[in-house]
Parts: sequence; C-alpha cells; structure tokens
Amino acid sequence: MTVNLKAPESLLAVNGVKLSAIASGIKKNQAKDLVLISFESFTNCAAVFTKNRFRAAPVLIAEKNLSSARPVLLMINSGNANAGTGDSGYQDALKTCELAAAAIGCEANQVLPFSTGVIGENLPVDCFENSLPKLNISLSEDNWMQAAEGIMTTDTVAKGVSKQIQLDGETITITGISKGSGMIKPNMATMLGFVATDAKIDSVLLKTCLQNAVDQSFNAITVDGDTSTNDSCVLIASGCSPAVELTEGSANLDKFIVALNAVMLELAQSIIRDGEGATKFVEVKVANASSVKDAKEIAYTVAHSPLVKTALFASDPNWGRILAAVGRAEINELDIDKLSIHLDDVCIVENGGRADSYTEAAGQKVMSKTEIVITVDLNAGSETASVWTSDLSYDYVKINAEYRS
Amino acid sequence: MTVNLKAPESLLAVNGVKLSAIASGIKKNQAKDLVLISFESFTNCAAVFTKNRFRAAPVLIAEKNLSSARPVLLMINSGNANAGTGDSGYQDALKTCELAAAAIGCEANQVLPFSTGVIGENLPVDCFENSLPKLNISLSEDNWMQAAEGIMTTDTVAKGVSKQIQLDGETITITGISKGSGMIKPNMATMLGFVATDAKIDSVLLKTCLQNAVDQSFNAITVDGDTSTNDSCVLIASGCSPAVELTEGSANLDKFIVALNAVMLELAQSIIRDGEGATKFVEVKVANASSVKDAKEIAYTVAHSPLVKTALFASDPNWGRILAAVGRAEINELDIDKLSIHLDDVCIVENGGRADSYTEAAGQKVMSKTEIVITVDLNAGSETASVWTSDLSYDYVKINAEYRS
Repeated sequence: MTVNLKAPESLLAVNGVKLSAIASGIKKNQAKDLVLISFESFTNCAAVFTKNRFRAAPVLIAEKNLSSARPVLLMINSGNANAGTGDSGYQDALKTCELAAAAIGCEANQVLPFSTGVIGENLPVDCFENSLPKLNISLSEDNWMQAAEGIMTTDTVAKGVSKQIQLDGETITITGISKGSGMIKPNMATMLGFVATDAKIDSVLLKTCLQNAVDQSFNAITVDGDTSTNDSCVLIASGCSPAVELTEGSANLDKFIVALNAVMLELAQSIIRDGEGATKFVEVKVANASSVKDAKEIAYTVAHSPLVKTALFASDPNWGRILAAVGRAEINELDIDKLSIHLDDVCIVENGGRADSYTEAAGQKVMSKTEIVITVDLNAGSETASVWTSDLSYDYVKINAEYRS
Repeated sequence: MTVNLKAPESLLAVNGVKLSAIASGIKKNQAKDLVLISFESFTNCAAVFTKNRFRAAPVLIAEKNLSSARPVLLMINSGNANAGTGDSGYQDALKTCELAAAAIGCEANQVLPFSTGVIGENLPVDCFENSLPKLNISLSEDNWMQAAEGIMTTDTVAKGVSKQIQLDGETITITGISKGSGMIKPNMATMLGFVATDAKIDSVLLKTCLQNAVDQSFNAITVDGDTSTNDSCVLIASGCSPAVELTEGSANLDKFIVALNAVMLELAQSIIRDGEGATKFVEVKVANASSVKDAKEIAYTVAHSPLVKTALFASDPNWGRILAAVGRAEINELDIDKLSIHLDDVCIVENGGRADSYTEAAGQKVMSKTEIVITVDLNAGSETASVWTSDLSYDYVKINAEYRS
C-alpha cells in the first residue's frame, strides 16, 4: 500500500532526451529491468552519489566516466545492484558499458551505468548483450513512463514528475523519475533519481542546482536509516529549449530552481509515500534551531526511532516516545524548558513536559490521520529543517524478512 | 518468547541488604509494582543515570539525593515512569520519598526513587501511601526474587544474577537484578539495574568499578536504539562481609572486578535475550579498530540497522545488508579492502566484496542459529568492542504498536 500516491498518468517529453526500457531477464518476473536514457554530447550532466564506503561497481564507474568524458547515455538496470561483487563485478560493469557503446555508437566512457536490486550477486551480462540492440532501436522522447517502470525494485508504484515553466515566453520542461522504497536514508538512499530538462545551463551551475535540490529532497528522507551502496541522482540539461541560457543571479535561474526543487522534492516524497510497509507519511520539522545541522540531527533521531515509528503505525499518541527521541539526539545544546513539540497544531510538549492544554483525544485525532507533521520548535535560533519519513509496520518487517525468499 | 533465558531459580542474599515487593495498584493487572531495597547508612552507594535530556523526575531526585545525603533506601516502582510530567511529576516524586522516609524512619533525602513504565502519566501517589507501611514490615534479605519481579514492565522473565568469590578464605557475594526489554540503547537504556555486594570498598572506588562495568555491559546493548528518560543503574556495597577492604591495585580488587563485570554483563545480556519480540541473540564484535569509539560506532550501526535486524529475524544470510551498514558507519577512516566480516566462523566479506570462499549454504547454516556472532575485523589497529542486540520481528512491532491499548 502507499500513502496517497499514484503513478503519474503521463510524463512530459524533454527535447533532446530519448528513453527506452525492456524486460531483459535480470528480474525473474519478466518485468522491465533495463533502461536507456540517451542524449547528445552537448548535454550537460551533473550527478551525486552515495557516501556509503562500500560503493557498487557502477557507482565507481559512473563517477569516473562523468569526470573524464562527455556522457551521452545513462544505462540503468534494476533487479541486481552489482554491489559487494569485488573485481569481477567491476569488470562486469565495464563490459556492459562497452556493449552499450557498441550498440548505440559511442565510446564506453560516455556511458554512465547504474544498478539497483539485490546486493552481492553477479550481474547477468548476457541480459545486457541480448537487449541493448533492441533498446537502441526503441529510443524515443515519449518513453518516460516505461523508464520509470523499468527502474523499480520493491517500489509498488512508478514514480515520476513533470513541470513546465515559461521564461520570456519560451517553455522549459523538467521531467524526473525516481525509485526506492527501503534502505532509504540520506546521502542518497537506495534510491535512483534521473531528472532532465531542456534548459540551457552550464555544467558548474547545473551541479550547484542539483546539490542544493538534493539536500532539500533526497537527502531529507528516511524509511529505515539504511544508506545503500548504489544511490545516485543525475540531472541532465539538453539545452534544446529555445529559451535563453540560465545565468547566475538571473530571475530566470531563480524560477528554474523553484521548479527543479519542487520536482526533486515530489520525487523524494514519492519514495516515502511508497516506503516499505508505509501507512503514514510524516514530516518531522525542527524549527528555530541554532543550526541546520542540529535541526537535521533531531529530525532524524525522531524519524529513525522505532518506538516513534511503531506508535505512528498504531495511530497511538504516545508523545512520550517523541519527547524521549528528541531528548537523546546528539546535539551540544538542548534546553528542554524552552522547546515545544506539536502534532499538527496540537501542542504536546512545553515547559519540559506534557503541555497543560494537551488532551489524549486531541492527540488521537491527529495520529489517526495518514499525513502528519511533527514540529519540534527549539526556540534557540532561526534555522529550520524537515525530514520526511514513514511508519514501521508489520509489512515493513514482512517485506524485508522475505525479500530474497 | 526469549532467547535462551530463564528466570533464576533463586538469588543469594547479600549481608546488610533487605528487600520487599508488593502489588500496590500502579499496574492494572495486580502484578508486583513497588519495591524497596533497604540498607544501613554506612553502605556505600554509586549510580549512573540516563543521558537523555528529558530526564524523569525520579532520576533528577535520585541524583540530587545521592550527592547530598547517605542513602538508606532505594524505592522502585514499575508501571509508571513519572517522565514528561513536568513540575507536578517532580512534586509527586518528592512526596513519595517523604512517605517512604516516614514509613521506614529516615530523612526524605536518604531515599533514592526510581520509576519505569509509561511516560507522561501522573504517578498514583496514593498507591505508595497505602503500601509503604506493609513494605517496611516485610523487608527481608531473602526477597531478591520478589524484587526482580516487582521491577518488570514489558519483560517476560524476571532477571537476576548472583555470584560469590572467595577472598583470603572469606566469601563475598554479589547479587543483581535488572529490567528492560524495549527502548534499549546505551547511556542507560529503559533499563534499571540494582546490584548489591557485601564487600568493603570505598565510595570513590565503587563508582569507578560501576562505571567500568556499565560501559562493558548496560552501555553495550541495544534493542531499538531508543534511550529512555529513566535509565539508572545502582551499585551498593554494605561492607558486611568479614573480608578485608578492597583497595586500589590489590589482587582482591581485580578478582572482585571480574566477578562484578560478569554479573553486570549477564544482567545486561538478559535484557537483550528478553528484547521485545527477540528471536535471536546477536553479538556484533568489531575487532582491530584504531579506537574503541570507532569500534562501537560500527557495531551500533550494524546493530541498529532495520535491514540487518529483519534479515536476522528471517534467518536470511543477506550479508550485503551487513556490508552496507558497515559502509555507512560515521567514522573517519575505513579501508574496505582491508576489512573482513564473519558470521560466526564463516567469512562473508573480504577484499572489498563477497569472500571467494563464501557459500550461501554456509551463511544459511549460521543465520539459522539463535545465537550469532557478527565479527567485523577492521585490520586497522588493536582496539575491540562488542555490542549485543536482538532481531526485528513482527512481535517487536506488535508489542510496541499495542503497548498502551
């Protein structure tokens, strides 16, 4: 089940970006599992990768290729993460880049490979070999939905967002897809995101836009606190729109950033709405902190607490668990007498304990909702941060206990 | 269910320490919920308390009284934590100390109060008032088992350990009891521990012994990473044994420390064996780290990973999840090519990926056991630390989703 999430009915084409997807046989259930996203070499490309020390082979190669050549192809497989596979996994990933290069006609280092799925199994290179020529033939600007489906693993719903903005009368399109449902925590969760735009923007500025957008979206979500070996997010800009180039300090850039951040946040939140076993969609907002770091630390401590998450699942206004989680957050200064905690607009904690105005009935009413905002106001500064998370249900345990069986 | 844990058949009396327990009505199910541990004012007493910023009223008072007077009474209630109750909770806790002092004949600040149970509900002071005279009459050195039962909350088994050692032909006894089952993570988990000995030892040395023992026991266990508002561990030494005083640097002290550490570790491990929903008892050992801090950080990251915990529950040798958890631990240096990971004696990871010798059958055999050691050898130094934990099962979710209903 998901929390108020449906697959998009359609996604808008982005000038200069073609896609194709196929069931290559990596997944046992004949679902789509291999995706190409192809573009011209004048397209600018920025990416961020997992900070897990065990980085999967494709992550290592994608990062290396991005720094040494101008990419023209993203190749994404689901069903196998090619992680923890040592040198043979690295060689397999290189081999798939060579096969892709031969199929579409480019250099192997112009291919950025991405993999997601089970860790520790060898990549079935023959599935790539058999499918790449077919994928090349079926590349089209209209295949975003197929691509969104092709990158899914435990996702129950394909995730994608499109937005358009007008700049000086010209249209710019941003379309993105994402996947992920468990092993989700910042620094790129088991999470892949591919966002394309036809805006003209140089690669340095593009990277800055990506990093800022990711910090407020993909790096502000958590299902279970587990950071994966494969997380990656890519933003490409084909420059094919007739709109003028976006330049630093321009009003047009500001407009673009607002739209980009909205696309990224919606893609990231889609992952939480489809979080493994999720029955609730919860924002943990920490306001008036003395630093964003403190705010995020407290937000994550609450969002990761199994006791808070099981109380959310049970719709139980067990506010003592929220209080206890805030109290154990590893920050330097915390004045419990100054802070307040709200469930939506119901104050649960003030003056170091339960709010005088709090009633169980009011708490119960909020906790019964499927979308809840927990606000911790530290009253200690002016910085704010939010983290989005899901609850901990029987189904989370079921999905993760039975994942490989 | 528990993992290889039974209540002790009996516990040894400690000269100079009397106990009593009663069902005072705090718990709705007529189980024992109020316990006294009484001793003479020459008894030395050391304690450590939770580091959660939201500390329950009894914790604040126990710490204050311990620093301002010579305690003669520990008063412990279960069923209500008197936490998050603000000033009225503080006044309630003071009142119960006055009632206890009147009943047994001492000053109110010679009483150390402890509470455990639901957070945020007012303490029913009348239950104390009605029961304290009866508790005073029934104080006896033989009531350790009753006391162990009286401090339980979601525990399914009463927890206690006794050990005796011979020093120069004289016997020293150490007996301890503990409670806790969820909201368990170091810095004193939702956990109470009361350990008594008849050894003669000064209060400074006693505090050192307690802190060292706690670091290796109660501060090295985790069920869910949640640190509670009420955790406390107390060590008292009545000095009633005829054995000579334990002094710094003596062989006798070393012997005592070994026995004390063993008692504390067994008490702490009992909490994990009775962890909420636990079906496995797991040691995560990090060897050859450059610091104990690094070793503990990695051990806790693995022990807290919901994906590792659900794999343990499923007996699934999904070693990629262990690798991914090690890889995201927040330490400064980690050379993935040098480290190895073992499940018991089966090597699962070496040279940055799956060990060549690893077979799924060998991994499956270990994961099917109820007691498992996960060893991460960093090959980077000479420090080692262990953390003990349980798995994440349907029953963990059930217990915590239904706790208050």
